[in-house]
Amino acid sequence: MAMATSPYTLLLKNPNLTPLKNPNFNNPISTTTNTNPRFNLAAKPVSIKCAATSQTQTPIQAPPQTQTHQDRVFNFAAGPATLPEKVLLKAQSELYNWRGSGMSVMEMSHRGKEFLSIIQKAESDLRTLLNISDDYSVLFLQGGATTQFAAIPLNLVNPNDTVDFIVTGSWSDKAFKEAQKYSKPSVIWTGKSEKYTKIPSFHDLEQNPDAKFLHICANETIHGVEYKDYPSPKNEECGAIRGHCCDHQERSDRNAQEITPVMLDYKIHADNNSLYNTPPCYGIYMCGLVFEDLLDQGGLVEVEKKNKKKAEILYNAIDGSNGFYRCPVEKSVRSLMNVPFTLEKSELEAEFIKEAAKENMVQLKGHRSVGGMRASIYNAMPLAGVEKLVAFMKDFQARNA
Amino acid sequence: MAMATSPYTLLLKNPNLTPLKNPNFNNPISTTTNTNPRFNLAAKPVSIKCAATSQTQTPIQAPPQTQTHQDRVFNFAAGPATLPEKVLLKAQSELYNWRGSGMSVMEMSHRGKEFLSIIQKAESDLRTLLNISDDYSVLFLQGGATTQFAAIPLNLVNPNDTVDFIVTGSWSDKAFKEAQKYSKPSVIWTGKSEKYTKIPSFHDLEQNPDAKFLHICANETIHGVEYKDYPSPKNEECGAIRGHCCDHQERSDRNAQEITPVMLDYKIHADNNSLYNTPPCYGIYMCGLVFEDLLDQGGLVEVEKKNKKKAEILYNAIDGSNGFYRCPVEKSVRSLMNVPFTLEKSELEAEFIKEAAKENMVQLKGHRSVGGMRASIYNAMPLAGVEKLVAFMKDFQARNA
Repeated sequence: MAMATSPYTLLLKNPNLTPLKNPNFNNPISTTTNTNPRFNLAAKPVSIKCAATSQTQTPIQAPPQTQTHQDRVFNFAAGPATLPEKVLLKAQSELYNWRGSGMSVMEMSHRGKEFLSIIQKAESDLRTLLNISDDYSVLFLQGGATTQFAAIPLNLVNPNDTVDFIVTGSWSDKAFKEAQKYSKPSVIWTGKSEKYTKIPSFHDLEQNPDAKFLHICANETIHGVEYKDYPSPKNEECGAIRGHCCDHQERSDRNAQEITPVMLDYKIHADNNSLYNTPPCYGIYMCGLVFEDLLDQGGLVEVEKKNKKKAEILYNAIDGSNGFYRCPVEKSVRSLMNVPFTLEKSELEAEFIKEAAKENMVQLKGHRSVGGMRASIYNAMPLAGVEKLVAFMKDFQARNA
Repeated sequence: MAMATSPYTLLLKNPNLTPLKNPNFNNPISTTTNTNPRFNLAAKPVSIKCAATSQTQTPIQAPPQTQTHQDRVFNFAAGPATLPEKVLLKAQSELYNWRGSGMSVMEMSHRGKEFLSIIQKAESDLRTLLNISDDYSVLFLQGGATTQFAAIPLNLVNPNDTVDFIVTGSWSDKAFKEAQKYSKPSVIWTGKSEKYTKIPSFHDLEQNPDAKFLHICANETIHGVEYKDYPSPKNEECGAIRGHCCDHQERSDRNAQEITPVMLDYKIHADNNSLYNTPPCYGIYMCGLVFEDLLDQGGLVEVEKKNKKKAEILYNAIDGSNGFYRCPVEKSVRSLMNVPFTLEKSELEAEFIKEAAKENMVQLKGHRSVGGMRASIYNAMPLAGVEKLVAFMKDFQARNA
């Protein structure tokens, strides 16, 4: 979920860990006799995005008079990014006094019964959404994917262990570079020479047989390439973790490296149910509201249908423009979430972005490393936003062809 | 500032760093020719707490009808903790649409002009509040003090460097233990045998002459001891950093250790003006509102007066109870912020906490490692809250003496 306050959600598979729903909140692994618990990390996708269309909105309370639907812009930023209006209105209605508790969520002790109910509901809804079994722990972490680029090798491998990376864009490249501090990573495929517009076919990949994990980034937000299915690691003990915009597959039978900062130690967070120190409480609360909203919409199956439709009409507009608009990404691996495109007449790009902003479609400028435009159309971007963008693109083309 | 979403604010002194207010936001040290900039870290106190009394409140807009002043509890939690009502009402009024931008602060790109105006205003107000000169960089970091317990030695010393710790409670003890991973720390004084009720006198301290920094915790939130003035490190090159609840004094003439996760590298955050990756945007926004509120009250001098009065009436109530209530902390080093106390009849403590909660005074239970009660009376706790607590204490005593 792309928002400023979102914690990084991580799944840990460990048969020795009592899942969070266990009422014993202080020492969930105290019931085991294994003093050196194995961490087998495996995955279900956690790259949750939230969606709401204006049709389905039933605001908890009317927004203040100066804040109406018409005042909203369509925000195409890649992250932080747009949130469902319904979620924002609910958060607004209870910011000052959360459900009669007499305080804001921001003021609550993270060990008080009020916040425990929030984090437990968020986890429970996430488990429902993603069908996460009790074999997995769910961790709510802060510091973003960049922190996990260090935490993953620190927790899962020894400094001399080999690990494999597929580099499909900026994020997997950053993950590879950070892993060099804590392991022996090797890049088994890179899309750099083709400007990160492709995803490799898996059967051609030469994986290191001893690699302790295979790291991939499921969706590169800057370059707009996305895995449509997933490679099988050669080392069959591999599990997988996926979170935020980046995917990882890995395994481990060890505790964290000795040099691991306590705040990057998965076992400590798992043992403390993400409450070792003060967690990002408000971010967890907002995640919970988004999870609830996704369930209200019918879950990920329904949301994916909407997302496919949104992406289809945008890519069709690009591909049907006779070259006026261009998307560099190979068609079979185009991201449903982040759509980069350029103008054949690149000198018009600044004008395109400026005119779109005047019509309340903002943050369409491409990442500085890529240029051009980028429309991020996460779950919370309404269909109406994409339709408005496509109409604008056609009009802009008619005026500038 | 004790709130769930608050980033850890850090001051870095470095003559080679262009301060944040420099309009060149991308590479603030590019103007220097020094390729190995020295990090001299020095300090002004950053343990900002926020205060507002109900008298001074001029809400931006009326709260929704179900949310009135009367619904508020007095929240004595040690962190996350109470925030000024004025700040909460302002945050509520602009949660859905920040100042006509058409989006919530949570949805804004951290590189967009709207959020840049928020972080720059927050920094500018903090500089005014604490009289921070341009010699210092201000960093907004996430992960709390526990993350900094690792980051400080990682950034400031070599693995074999000696560093000194004064251990006055749980937080300085945690900092010492984490520093063992990245340096050679030695405890030059500990209050453990006296249950952390004291602060040492400085002239008796045997500091290691080679110590690269001297680490102290200015205010121990669990044990309620607070430095009233500060020791001078023997090594005169020492500077100091103070942030959150914990204080540090340190120096450095080197870059971070090679094993430092990129997200814990001060130089990277300084070079990127706290925007290396997505920062805790909403937390920074809330900090900015609190800083503004503190300035509106007349700055820290005025707020300190209020805080001294609040602490005085509470400690007087304890000390004047003929032993019914007891505070274990030596009088000269009692915290103005966190007031631990016990009942002579300890069997009544649970009843005390329960009855107080019925009268809307919550989170008075002491930390599990200490027991008894704890009243945290940070800046945002109104005088009326402390007065109500003291009246309740007298009544409870009369009924149970």
